[in-house]
Amino acid sequence: MECNDYNITRDLERKNLNLNPLQRGGVLPREAREALHDFGDGYSVCDYCSGRLDEIAKPSISGFLEDLSKFIKVDDVRTTHGARESKFIVMHSICEPGDIIVVDGNAHYTTHLAAERAGLEIIEVPNSEYPEFRVDMDVYEETLKNSIDEYGEIKLAVLTHVDGDYGNLTDAKSFGNFCNKLNVPSLLNCAYSMGRLPIDVNGWNIDFVVGSGHKSMAASGPIGVLGMKHEWAETLLKRSPRHTKKEVEMLGCTSRGAPIATLMASLPHVVNRVKNWNEEVELSRSFVANLEEIEGITQLGIKPTNHDLVRFDTPILHEISKIHPRKGFFLYEELKSRNIVGIKRGQTEWFKCSTYGMSKNQRDYIADSFKEIVEKFAK
Amino acid sequence: MECNDYNITRDLERKNLNLNPLQRGGVLPREAREALHDFGDGYSVCDYCSGRLDEIAKPSISGFLEDLSKFIKVDDVRTTHGARESKFIVMHSICEPGDIIVVDGNAHYTTHLAAERAGLEIIEVPNSEYPEFRVDMDVYEETLKNSIDEYGEIKLAVLTHVDGDYGNLTDAKSFGNFCNKLNVPSLLNCAYSMGRLPIDVNGWNIDFVVGSGHKSMAASGPIGVLGMKHEWAETLLKRSPRHTKKEVEMLGCTSRGAPIATLMASLPHVVNRVKNWNEEVELSRSFVANLEEIEGITQLGIKPTNHDLVRFDTPILHEISKIHPRKGFFLYEELKSRNIVGIKRGQTEWFKCSTYGMSKNQRDYIADSFKEIVEKFAK
Repeated sequence: MECNDYNITRDLERKNLNLNPLQRGGVLPREAREALHDFGDGYSVCDYCSGRLDEIAKPSISGFLEDLSKFIKVDDVRTTHGARESKFIVMHSICEPGDIIVVDGNAHYTTHLAAERAGLEIIEVPNSEYPEFRVDMDVYEETLKNSIDEYGEIKLAVLTHVDGDYGNLTDAKSFGNFCNKLNVPSLLNCAYSMGRLPIDVNGWNIDFVVGSGHKSMAASGPIGVLGMKHEWAETLLKRSPRHTKKEVEMLGCTSRGAPIATLMASLPHVVNRVKNWNEEVELSRSFVANLEEIEGITQLGIKPTNHDLVRFDTPILHEISKIHPRKGFFLYEELKSRNIVGIKRGQTEWFKCSTYGMSKNQRDYIADSFKEIVEKFAK
Repeated sequence: MECNDYNITRDLERKNLNLNPLQRGGVLPREAREALHDFGDGYSVCDYCSGRLDEIAKPSISGFLEDLSKFIKVDDVRTTHGARESKFIVMHSICEPGDIIVVDGNAHYTTHLAAERAGLEIIEVPNSEYPEFRVDMDVYEETLKNSIDEYGEIKLAVLTHVDGDYGNLTDAKSFGNFCNKLNVPSLLNCAYSMGRLPIDVNGWNIDFVVGSGHKSMAASGPIGVLGMKHEWAETLLKRSPRHTKKEVEMLGCTSRGAPIATLMASLPHVVNRVKNWNEEVELSRSFVANLEEIEGITQLGIKPTNHDLVRFDTPILHEISKIHPRKGFFLYEELKSRNIVGIKRGQTEWFKCSTYGMSKNQRDYIADSFKEIVEKFAK
């Protein structure tokens, strides 16, 4: 048979400044590039396995998991195929179909899908709506209490630590504490925080934490993190009665290859970069301030932002699209000609973006480019 | 914090002949190495996604899935995180906890784990035991009929196309036909066959097929294939009512990165190598014949073998281990000194190995090395 041409090349990240928030936290450092090369072949990580992925000594997955649990301050930790897979593992392990869980109104779609796959009903904690879309812990606690009153038992409460729409950072500690008081297991989705900013699962009194290697931990995907209080290990990490070394919810082994090798190679880099988080937020805030100098561009979400992912209302760009011969495509094309990518083709009314990991000069260049484009076309 | 030294380097595949059957089918060809480099960063494959992984046009995942379904002759196909994850998706989608399924006696442990995770009971079709361990289709059909008589309904019948212990190739067509006649959905586990030998899912009348990218399709793991008759697509690929583009059992997207890029890059290579399967089997048979020239080494499983994975009874090596100063480690060490790896340290009573993809010279060198080692130490 003749195969199609799949067009499998990519130089986007090498040749351009990529504003797509999905892409910023997953760029590999040099060490991870080397691990990718060494562990690229299929089952490469399993050369010295004697039956348990998490106990492999070369490369030292056991040593890595030990460090990872210290890094996010959690009792037990495993890698999975991604944050969504981690969420499903928790829900599938501790809930029954028909059970009710509470989820914040800024949850990622994969939280809903994990719940749907596990057959669960979702009660939603409303956010504060336009323009902040804040998830307030008082509102969450009240919703949770009301839900317990109405349904008797809530099997799980999920909070998105930093959401993917507005980059709002929520108060995990308050969440952990009231869930604990109300005796509801708590799950914190750190897909956009773990690997970018400090995480303290035990300090925040959280039962389950999930993270994403390809989103925020400088790893080649797909790989996720699943951490838990030790009291849950017996349930989540239950072994097979037939294959007594193997953990059932992990289907024996999860990350069997380059993803875990790159996550491991990146950890020291990630541990270090998290220390510079405050600086990163400052750079992000000044990028926002620069962009907001343009009349007709406003940041949504909590202000000033506490994250690198930010969302802008951009009526001025939408106005331009109405008179520009390339219509909505003008923005994508103008940016592309300046080697800036990551905002969808045709999108002008609003966009979200991230400048995580970029230098101040690069961020200034991007903000200046927007100014230039608006000046060029605005009436 | 100080991180441990994880010892993340690997030159095993570059510097040695690796006999580990897990490793032979997942070695990347040049094209896949290039894709690994281009798509190594986190979410790289999602640059041009508009909500559906299987519909991404650059790189052309849609074109690739079209080719993949032609290659294995199946109606609908998706990628997953591995063969085990594919099996769980089928079981989780079409079965309820407490349901009964029938599984062949040579099934991989992950078949059992997927069933355990889905809360299913397993009825096992016995193999013919020592020395052939053959899974006979008459025995399978009879077991299936008896199970239907006893329990009323069998929700799924699973057959391992080529098992990982003996490399026995089973009669998939006969299996597909009697399952169909008995109205039991059939699942064929092709983790050790898809990508090595021709697969004809529709021709064999099979409902579900699973494959492994990192085990047999020259891809960087973890990645699997899940194929199905079109009539099952509505169940397995059910969309989320809330996020209507997203497939629930896939949790929206599965292979988001280097694994799918390498699987895609390798497909033309894999399509070609499958054409040489008969030659591969001939080379494997002559390797076995060479090894069996040593008194005290005998191939188990169906003879002559129909696969590259073969298992040997090796009483002579065990005898040597009793008198050798390095005890059971002598074999590993002697082989390693000849740049041959992939047989576990300390193992001497038996071993399984594969020479898949090696040249005739390389296979002869390995067989000669065994002869040399036995001659050196046997009394």
